[in-house]
Amino acid sequence: MNTPININRRNSSALYKRAKEVITGGVSRNTIHRRPHLFYVSQAKGSYVTDIDANTRIDFANNMASLIHGHAHPAINEAVIRQLERGTAYTMGAKAEVEFAELLTQRSKNFEKIRFVNSGTEAVMAMIKAARAYTGRSKIAKAEGAYHGTYDFAEVSQIVRPENWGDVDKPNSVPVTYATPGCVLNDVVVFPYNDIERTINLLEANKKDLACVLLDLVSHRVGMFPIEEDYLVAIYNWTRKNRVLLVYDEVVTYRVAYKGAQDIYPVTPDITALGKIIGGGFPVGAIAGSAEVMSVFDPTRKIIKQPHSGTFSANPVTMTAGRVAMELFDEQAVSDINKITEIAKSQIREVIKELDVPVVMTGAGSMFRFHFRYNEPRNHRETYQNPEEMVLIKEILDYLFYHEDLMLINTFACMFATTITQVEVDRLTEAIFNAFKKYKKEIETFAK
Amino acid sequence: MNTPININRRNSSALYKRAKEVITGGVSRNTIHRRPHLFYVSQAKGSYVTDIDANTRIDFANNMASLIHGHAHPAINEAVIRQLERGTAYTMGAKAEVEFAELLTQRSKNFEKIRFVNSGTEAVMAMIKAARAYTGRSKIAKAEGAYHGTYDFAEVSQIVRPENWGDVDKPNSVPVTYATPGCVLNDVVVFPYNDIERTINLLEANKKDLACVLLDLVSHRVGMFPIEEDYLVAIYNWTRKNRVLLVYDEVVTYRVAYKGAQDIYPVTPDITALGKIIGGGFPVGAIAGSAEVMSVFDPTRKIIKQPHSGTFSANPVTMTAGRVAMELFDEQAVSDINKITEIAKSQIREVIKELDVPVVMTGAGSMFRFHFRYNEPRNHRETYQNPEEMVLIKEILDYLFYHEDLMLINTFACMFATTITQVEVDRLTEAIFNAFKKYKKEIETFAK
Repeated sequence: MNTPININRRNSSALYKRAKEVITGGVSRNTIHRRPHLFYVSQAKGSYVTDIDANTRIDFANNMASLIHGHAHPAINEAVIRQLERGTAYTMGAKAEVEFAELLTQRSKNFEKIRFVNSGTEAVMAMIKAARAYTGRSKIAKAEGAYHGTYDFAEVSQIVRPENWGDVDKPNSVPVTYATPGCVLNDVVVFPYNDIERTINLLEANKKDLACVLLDLVSHRVGMFPIEEDYLVAIYNWTRKNRVLLVYDEVVTYRVAYKGAQDIYPVTPDITALGKIIGGGFPVGAIAGSAEVMSVFDPTRKIIKQPHSGTFSANPVTMTAGRVAMELFDEQAVSDINKITEIAKSQIREVIKELDVPVVMTGAGSMFRFHFRYNEPRNHRETYQNPEEMVLIKEILDYLFYHEDLMLINTFACMFATTITQVEVDRLTEAIFNAFKKYKKEIETFAK
Repeated sequence: MNTPININRRNSSALYKRAKEVITGGVSRNTIHRRPHLFYVSQAKGSYVTDIDANTRIDFANNMASLIHGHAHPAINEAVIRQLERGTAYTMGAKAEVEFAELLTQRSKNFEKIRFVNSGTEAVMAMIKAARAYTGRSKIAKAEGAYHGTYDFAEVSQIVRPENWGDVDKPNSVPVTYATPGCVLNDVVVFPYNDIERTINLLEANKKDLACVLLDLVSHRVGMFPIEEDYLVAIYNWTRKNRVLLVYDEVVTYRVAYKGAQDIYPVTPDITALGKIIGGGFPVGAIAGSAEVMSVFDPTRKIIKQPHSGTFSANPVTMTAGRVAMELFDEQAVSDINKITEIAKSQIREVIKELDVPVVMTGAGSMFRFHFRYNEPRNHRETYQNPEEMVLIKEILDYLFYHEDLMLINTFACMFATTITQVEVDRLTEAIFNAFKKYKKEIETFAK
């Protein structure tokens, strides 16, 4: 283990001791948990984050892909400060909501109507409930290994192991949370990603009960490779034939193209869940899509199929920050960030070649993920890391954090911000070279 | 109907037209929907809210009870602006989370450990999942009529009518969202509030499957009266005997006393969901309680029973705003706001007496609700308003909004902020006098 002996970390260590006294595990988000203790931020600006012991690191995680313009962007902060003076939340409407809704719906013709909530978890939950309300059916189908937030129906089979994932012809519904009701597991059909025949067979077997097929087009946890087009088209065609909704989780992938990852493919979802980058750094979620399906939320109808509110939904601070962030993330900005990410991947590919280390990168747009494999995985079972492999990944990420001053996402992934330049890309390339050189032998033991 | 003919509302009307084009029903939150259109805020400060047509109203709703210090409190804004310059969300820890967790856990000994999420809905969902994970059982029990956010298990039987609520000995599990899975309804035991015998019978009949009994101690939708102590004690004793968790939803009621409404009663819950006022005007939720039960979340344990994260959970902006708001809401502030609320209620009681109108007020601490009744209701069926009664309430609230320039909560309730003074209380009293005088006859038709 890369015990951080030579790192100045007295203040973070002391603060984590206090944290453990009052917060379960010392932290509200397991994704940022780190041994021997958390590190705490004193200052974050652009792509640079300084902790309370004055260590500065380059940030390739960007709060789990949510900060598309890095930290403390001046234009976002300026707009938020103007809003603060006028209040942060009302029992009335806010122009900021209308303006942001106009921006997002004008950006993509797939988003005829939109509603805002407070998180990606809330967005996916509201979307699944909307699919049920619209179709009158209760089951959902989702991909094995895909993460869609913490709503229990959505989290089924996000974490699986060879011991419990079952036959690939009919993958088990595996609970993430202990004692998830059996009826929840029953109402979720789990299919293997990118496998047309098996997926269609599973959908067919449940077609009378299915409200929707839930898809992340570049699912981070499945393996962060773009979904194969013929597979997506096959699912789309099946849903049209069987009047089942096709719903996308673009909470992470909306960054991939100007109109979201969905714009890369020739089919249109019924509704899409959004989150992360559209909040401009503030808590956010949204459901957007066909006016017809979205009408289940409509409070002006005589029968409101899905009554829905939320104290902080569409609060004007989030709406303002989100609007400014998305205005700045225009077609040029999307193109630029995708280009610099491509440069980074190409430089790293050279490193991998030079070191002759069995590593592949998957990804799309401004995000990519490393795998210790000879070939790119195509589904979650190929992506799956056994516990020993996870220990190695953790060790390499610790090495990058403690010795190279880089922050990556804990699956060994990078999510770029528009503040990343060639300087940071060169630093990343150099650090990855050092890491892969140091751990080449260990990496080779897992490659297959 | 009080059509707002003489109100300047051109700008709001025009903006709502734009909103309807892009947002389903023109709004993300049904609670703030209003006919003929929404009104939009241009400026909110303390207890005064000015719309974009320059109408200024006194705010007794405070964003559905979430703004304990009214709008744009200078100390909260100042602290938030300092945080903005250091970033709004990190893939690392933030001191603001630790400091706020210390404040809340030191405030109440019932909160041994805490975790933060993004909304009350997320808090209740995480709490229910925690109860299942801790007990290994899947059913929950909740009160008929009680609102606990939009997690489908939690929203069962929030909206009921005589035609569907069923036998009081065994109330039906009534879905709020169309096509809620039958298995969800099956896993929720609905009991009648304040009825010891029936409630205990229902709990007994399900004791082998129950993870928790979920209670709001002054449930707004049940009727906003404090739960009866002998009833609460009977439930508590039953849960201790049967090793079922007692979990509270104090998202609304935490404002009622310095340590929350739970401090008024002689029993201790296992865990509590928090939200609303603890965010200082920003999206927030929290789960707090026994270290033992909260350990299901612990990422440092070998088996994590409830893996839990959230991109914006415990973000430093919310944590900072929440800490400042709760520091300001100290024992003196709680006592002061409860006193001014009591003065308001006592002045309004005089109005009711003088007009001899059949209205009663229920409530606790800094919140109260009107009922067109001779006697205070004790459960949701007594509180229940039929459609005609709801039309009258809407008409009176419209009258108060359009003609008296007051904003109340759409159930006919007030949630005070610390910025309310005798001036606003006198204005409220006068307006209520005018409203009850004007609508006395109509109110009398519903009184029973």
